[in-house]
Amino acid sequence: MTAEHLLGGAHHDGSELFVPQGTPALGDVVPVRVRVPASGTERGVHLRSVRDGEPHVVPARLERADEHERWYVAELAVDNPVTGYRFLLDEPGGYRWLNGRGLHGRDVPDAADFRVTTHQPAPAWACDAVVYQVFPDRFARSGTPRQLPAWAEPAAWDDEPVGSGPSTPRQLYGGDLLGIEQHLDHLQRLGVDVLYLTPFFPAGSNHRYDASTFEHVDPLLGGNQALASLSRAVHARGMRIMGDLTTNHTGAGHEWFTTAQLDRAGAEATFYYWQDDGEPVGWLGHRSLPKLDHAAPGLRARMVEGPGSVVERWLQEPFALDGWRIDVANMTGRYGDVDLTHVVARTIRATMRAAKPEALLVSEHFHDAGADLSGDGWHANMNYSGFTRPVWGWLAPRVPERQVLGLPVPLARRSGAATVASMRDFAAVVPWSVTAHQWNLLGSHDTPRIRTMVGDPATVEVAVGLLMTFPGTPVVFAGDELGATGTNGEHARVPMPWDRPDRWDDATFEVYRSLIAVRRASRALREGGLRWVVVDDDALVFLRETLDERVLVAVARDPWAGVTLPRELLRHGSTPETLYGHDLTVADALRVPGAGPGVGVWRLA
Amino acid sequence: MTAEHLLGGAHHDGSELFVPQGTPALGDVVPVRVRVPASGTERGVHLRSVRDGEPHVVPARLERADEHERWYVAELAVDNPVTGYRFLLDEPGGYRWLNGRGLHGRDVPDAADFRVTTHQPAPAWACDAVVYQVFPDRFARSGTPRQLPAWAEPAAWDDEPVGSGPSTPRQLYGGDLLGIEQHLDHLQRLGVDVLYLTPFFPAGSNHRYDASTFEHVDPLLGGNQALASLSRAVHARGMRIMGDLTTNHTGAGHEWFTTAQLDRAGAEATFYYWQDDGEPVGWLGHRSLPKLDHAAPGLRARMVEGPGSVVERWLQEPFALDGWRIDVANMTGRYGDVDLTHVVARTIRATMRAAKPEALLVSEHFHDAGADLSGDGWHANMNYSGFTRPVWGWLAPRVPERQVLGLPVPLARRSGAATVASMRDFAAVVPWSVTAHQWNLLGSHDTPRIRTMVGDPATVEVAVGLLMTFPGTPVVFAGDELGATGTNGEHARVPMPWDRPDRWDDATFEVYRSLIAVRRASRALREGGLRWVVVDDDALVFLRETLDERVLVAVARDPWAGVTLPRELLRHGSTPETLYGHDLTVADALRVPGAGPGVGVWRLA
Repeated sequence: MTAEHLLGGAHHDGSELFVPQGTPALGDVVPVRVRVPASGTERGVHLRSVRDGEPHVVPARLERADEHERWYVAELAVDNPVTGYRFLLDEPGGYRWLNGRGLHGRDVPDAADFRVTTHQPAPAWACDAVVYQVFPDRFARSGTPRQLPAWAEPAAWDDEPVGSGPSTPRQLYGGDLLGIEQHLDHLQRLGVDVLYLTPFFPAGSNHRYDASTFEHVDPLLGGNQALASLSRAVHARGMRIMGDLTTNHTGAGHEWFTTAQLDRAGAEATFYYWQDDGEPVGWLGHRSLPKLDHAAPGLRARMVEGPGSVVERWLQEPFALDGWRIDVANMTGRYGDVDLTHVVARTIRATMRAAKPEALLVSEHFHDAGADLSGDGWHANMNYSGFTRPVWGWLAPRVPERQVLGLPVPLARRSGAATVASMRDFAAVVPWSVTAHQWNLLGSHDTPRIRTMVGDPATVEVAVGLLMTFPGTPVVFAGDELGATGTNGEHARVPMPWDRPDRWDDATFEVYRSLIAVRRASRALREGGLRWVVVDDDALVFLRETLDERVLVAVARDPWAGVTLPRELLRHGSTPETLYGHDLTVADALRVPGAGPGVGVWRLA
Repeated sequence: MTAEHLLGGAHHDGSELFVPQGTPALGDVVPVRVRVPASGTERGVHLRSVRDGEPHVVPARLERADEHERWYVAELAVDNPVTGYRFLLDEPGGYRWLNGRGLHGRDVPDAADFRVTTHQPAPAWACDAVVYQVFPDRFARSGTPRQLPAWAEPAAWDDEPVGSGPSTPRQLYGGDLLGIEQHLDHLQRLGVDVLYLTPFFPAGSNHRYDASTFEHVDPLLGGNQALASLSRAVHARGMRIMGDLTTNHTGAGHEWFTTAQLDRAGAEATFYYWQDDGEPVGWLGHRSLPKLDHAAPGLRARMVEGPGSVVERWLQEPFALDGWRIDVANMTGRYGDVDLTHVVARTIRATMRAAKPEALLVSEHFHDAGADLSGDGWHANMNYSGFTRPVWGWLAPRVPERQVLGLPVPLARRSGAATVASMRDFAAVVPWSVTAHQWNLLGSHDTPRIRTMVGDPATVEVAVGLLMTFPGTPVVFAGDELGATGTNGEHARVPMPWDRPDRWDDATFEVYRSLIAVRRASRALREGGLRWVVVDDDALVFLRETLDERVLVAVARDPWAGVTLPRELLRHGSTPETLYGHDLTVADALRVPGAGPGVGVWRLA
């Protein structure tokens, strides 16, 4: 077992302790700060930024010092829309760099430099959001009779979803929007405040990622009226609602595509990519999901650009969506030697800003989204790479056998150090303004359930502890809070067991509810910086800090040695306030107990 | 002291053992190979590439195996102009990734993935090139009388250059192009075959990076006729000649700029950026070096685009340049919220390809050039970050005090491990087709001399050993081969001591000459892959390998323990051929001696 103690290292992140919050304008100069512990040997600190492609080094000034630490401040010129910067510590043993991955006693490339951007971050409400993802067919049935389409295979609410096979996309449980509206009390009891719906447009499957139109809501879900009603009800409770739009492709049954097939010289035919054999290019080769060609001006106008576009229309009354999650954002606009992804993202963003400045735009991207997250397009991303996978790897059972997220090999159990290194690596490729709004999740309609991934409720609690205390926006896939299980994305789309108390795990619900409440009660957990304290094979300890608050978090997957931390972390004369878990022991020092699995959250100042 | 033995790790690079050489077309499928030592525990190997933004994993097939190693091959689909890929090793302890930085027992971002590109690499002759950089004012005087400009302060050939101060840009030693032509024998004795000249256009300084025109060669250097004559002479010897073009700015005395000042409504005024106060935007704030605005169509046509442009004209007879080095390429086209660098680079490349397909285009970029080196613009870069700085840091004296390359702190002495990690990091951000042509250098007209940097001839030999055995193109700054010294770029611009045998270090010349000859005699040293074998604090041992040759290189900055390597590295029944340095001891194993400082190069197969 190895434990790395990181409290002794210099630290910077993009939070308010270190960088003035708000969006700088091009040409602004902003003070950026770095905190060096008293044990540091630096003779001085400098700031390196890159200005118009050229490194630019300025000295940092010692702003204050006490027996515990020194703070330096330097003037960062915001010379470009995305300005990269790092700190240079002049130390007797040789200078070191501090960037988003940590300290380096050698020269390193720029990819992990800290960044400020002149692009507006996600709207302010997103800072406080806890998102609840609902797959409409599986959440709740209102009982309204519906005419089933030919493709549908009706399922009883208690049936187990078919994980793979011809029935997988056809099993129709009949959840609808009114059903959701009837259960909003559940969301509020849990404490979430953003309802994110996977697609509600008509389609040829239960998941509806194969839309046949973007003009109206699927009648199976209750149609436009049901969405308007749900949106009103959500907003009346002070909550928000987001939609899910597939910009990479449509279904082969989409009205644009059927028109295109009938008239290959018409406008709609330009909306799609075609192969030499006259067949459409399909998403990952599926010809039933023809890929959209965003070079087509007609498509841009209809779908993403300006008033009247699909993107814009659903933000307006009476639907009044508060934002979009963009499906397959990583492939949208990319095909062969064409790469229009950033153009599409910026266009959607501009359309949304003009229509509803407070709307949120989140991308789906499963691997390294850094190149797509400079801040002028997607506000944030579904953070599978920087959160979900590392957490799964750390908490996975000792004998893992599950293959997940497209890899043909078993998920590997990783040490705390490997886990944190991956988290830091993936966070370091995006600006803090993005990190602070990444959609962290323990699973979704595309993955196994967290309960199945980690195997037991106690370990789920550890995962939820991380989810609710980490920088970014927690996203809960409906059913996780009740202990739902599922071995893959499709198998995990289990209906909510409203009438099955035997499938309703009250203890897990309470874990979710109380950890969400802990987050709601602490601005540091929502907006604070992230300072790693101890990284042990079996435990992760970190601080979340704002100007006025310091919260210590410890999560352990197994019993571990615990750690003794300096008492100076505690505000003078105060005692730690336990927000979750066991109390801390305080004597000459703070003693974090080595219990595990478990979660502890303490307000120190 | 720590030594890391890397021979036991899986290996891949872009050289011919692993990737078919040549430029694939979009849509091609190329077999890529990975070598796993017999000690590997993998259950299988997979290839992950990123296709249109989405990871795509295919199995690799075990192609051959013997008692020493296993080779796997996988089909890589070249789906995009730059296709990133990495290998996935399915191992019982948890899968590992192999990318350009090495092996990782955790998930990592994509920035260091291997890459293939559909862009033509540097011309074939560049693979065999050894470049010789000449600063024309300081190389040789023909004795032709010249009319001195008003700014010039004539210097005697033996004067020490002024390192900083008003005289620094004014000291004119009077070297000229005919002087260079008269000394081409020296270049051939040394063994170099590409003459790279820093600027030859008229200017207001001895360095001529402040051009007053791009229409003709500076009369102080002998004018157009002298360049034509030099070019003929160079080509007659089977050598090549390259120029140096400043695309980021001109001098304030440039005819475009003086016209622009006289007529702010004219075309030339659009060639420059202007501040609100009517003054030009200058390079790093120097108003004497007004920055060019590459958004101006008129500038593009005059300078970089198509027939008749500056870029094109000098490639034609009678000047017949074989390529350009682009000054301040990292800032060219970048200003505030404008970033046209890639557009300018691609335009220059297209202009050169149309005019002279075999011409070479190399950028100046001092830090992380990865984002600018996807392969469709600059063929390669002056590799300060991936070669010069790491080598300096490894070989710097123990008590370094020199501040170099813009950092306000002393150069740090780094371990072999830190040195190799930096080299790998910076190599991993560019395709192998770029790595194989990077301009590696131990110094230039912009840096201290290597002799001054490392302090003694024996350590210079170690540096030259690395330079001549490393992937990429070696570049020698004229004078280094004679042991010239200099504390900064300006001070290092010392005239060649043609008539001063006391300043002519024959031993150092012989080191350069013989190591260049070693490189010329081995295709593996010029085109082979790079496989690290031992990374010790004080020694670096690596293999350069082609399909038909294996060369072992060991460089040591100090005495070290030496290393015993498996005899299987040697072709069956053969003995190592010593190309440079001491012989290897061969018994049951190969014994690399621990002598140092020193260089050894051995052909094993």
